[in-house]
Amino acid sequence: MKIGIVGLGLIGGSLGLDMRSHHHTVVGVSRRESTCQKAVTLGCVDQASTDLSLLATAEVVFICTPIGLIIPTMQQLITVLPANTIVTDVGSVKTPIVEAISPLWHNFVGGHPMAGTADSGVEAALSNLFVQKPYVLTPTPTTPNSAVVLLEELLKELSATIYHCTPQEHDRAVSWISHLPVMVSSSLIAACTDEAEPQVLKLAQNLASSGFRDTSRVGGGNPELGVMMAKYNREALLKSLEVYRHNLDELKDLIEQENWTDLAAKLEHTQAVRPNFVQ
Amino acid sequence: MKIGIVGLGLIGGSLGLDMRSHHHTVVGVSRRESTCQKAVTLGCVDQASTDLSLLATAEVVFICTPIGLIIPTMQQLITVLPANTIVTDVGSVKTPIVEAISPLWHNFVGGHPMAGTADSGVEAALSNLFVQKPYVLTPTPTTPNSAVVLLEELLKELSATIYHCTPQEHDRAVSWISHLPVMVSSSLIAACTDEAEPQVLKLAQNLASSGFRDTSRVGGGNPELGVMMAKYNREALLKSLEVYRHNLDELKDLIEQENWTDLAAKLEHTQAVRPNFVQ
Repeated sequence: MKIGIVGLGLIGGSLGLDMRSHHHTVVGVSRRESTCQKAVTLGCVDQASTDLSLLATAEVVFICTPIGLIIPTMQQLITVLPANTIVTDVGSVKTPIVEAISPLWHNFVGGHPMAGTADSGVEAALSNLFVQKPYVLTPTPTTPNSAVVLLEELLKELSATIYHCTPQEHDRAVSWISHLPVMVSSSLIAACTDEAEPQVLKLAQNLASSGFRDTSRVGGGNPELGVMMAKYNREALLKSLEVYRHNLDELKDLIEQENWTDLAAKLEHTQAVRPNFVQ
Repeated sequence: MKIGIVGLGLIGGSLGLDMRSHHHTVVGVSRRESTCQKAVTLGCVDQASTDLSLLATAEVVFICTPIGLIIPTMQQLITVLPANTIVTDVGSVKTPIVEAISPLWHNFVGGHPMAGTADSGVEAALSNLFVQKPYVLTPTPTTPNSAVVLLEELLKELSATIYHCTPQEHDRAVSWISHLPVMVSSSLIAACTDEAEPQVLKLAQNLASSGFRDTSRVGGGNPELGVMMAKYNREALLKSLEVYRHNLDELKDLIEQENWTDLAAKLEHTQAVRPNFVQ
């Protein structure tokens, strides 16, 4: 099959590596000529160009740009692709993308591979990045079944674990397990830094170990990504933050009231249910 | 030197292993005979007993019991130890312990080794557990300098990194980097579990990956430990929770107001300052 990829970063490059290893022909488009050259050298694509017309003969096109460029990219692709081309994206938020693209392109299937590393750029592309990782597809009632089936066949070759849901369900789920943790974790770092006594702050910095490291990791991550999550998944994230704040206040109240029995019950509950999220 | 250890768990057992490897004689006391036998078999102590009088000839005694038993243990030790015995503890909160023990025992130095693993019990004892780990000592103006100096010599043999501060400074610092993260992380798990739609909850559980795993780790830990933190470090923890809540609300307000510029600045700040805590 001939596969097109727009946006040759970690995800686009990794998809290309795997697709090529399964004997598909992969053509890629990047805004930068230097990225195109790297992608060819690294074996992520057979051919690359800064011109979207390279994708005209692809049967399936993956839009792997940053989230803010997915809709503009689709708008440009309309003039280039024949109507039977299947288009999918890899954006980490689905509702605004699916709502904007569905009226523009009939053969569109929203997608979100839950895979990545701390690195970015085509140099960070890895083979087998998607093996046993969740890959969410968000077809709507108007999405052609043939497009979903063909896309799934490709994703099965990557050994990804495929989930289907509505764009709205996806966005609520990721607001809980991906976007809320970023805000919770960032606020932890911000709070600690608010310590007014310099010697206590210095001591806290010296004493911080694995517990703080883990809890603060995603809050110390890429700020642009955090803003994108908040911007594109604002409504679901605000609801999650509201519920979070309620849970935090409950726990704070129990400590204020010295209600150690109920605090123990609450901590026992979170210990008991965490394995449902983290196998 | 002859060293006594009360409480043969992960910390007590690991201290014993290291002290013995530095040719000290180590005697240990546990409430359970079976633990005493295990500690001898594992090489954590030269001799063990359920009777505190075994410690009568020790020059330095480490109280390594759970935090709630430190003060009662000291009260029992008074009748057993000669007045020149140096006593220290390993409790993760210092103010209430130092305040209670200082009037009871002149040669007391509060201590807190910031080392551990997810395991507990004497079977989990490890050699070199304290190497390059922070070990906080909290002497007061009335603590004999000779006691601090002698204890430090022992701790240097463990290759621990020694810090000095007041009990209050210690408790504020650990409320930031150890106790607040537990409450923040537990509330995250609790909030996610509050999702009302079963299919969204199931999807969130399936999609949760390393970001959620790390942010939720300490919130899914030992509930008894969490309650102990809150109980013994209540005041400092409540202040930290108050500051945390303020930071979370600020961030939530920025998202509500769609103020992406200030949200970016806040996330850039936490990205920039995290390395001060996590080398």
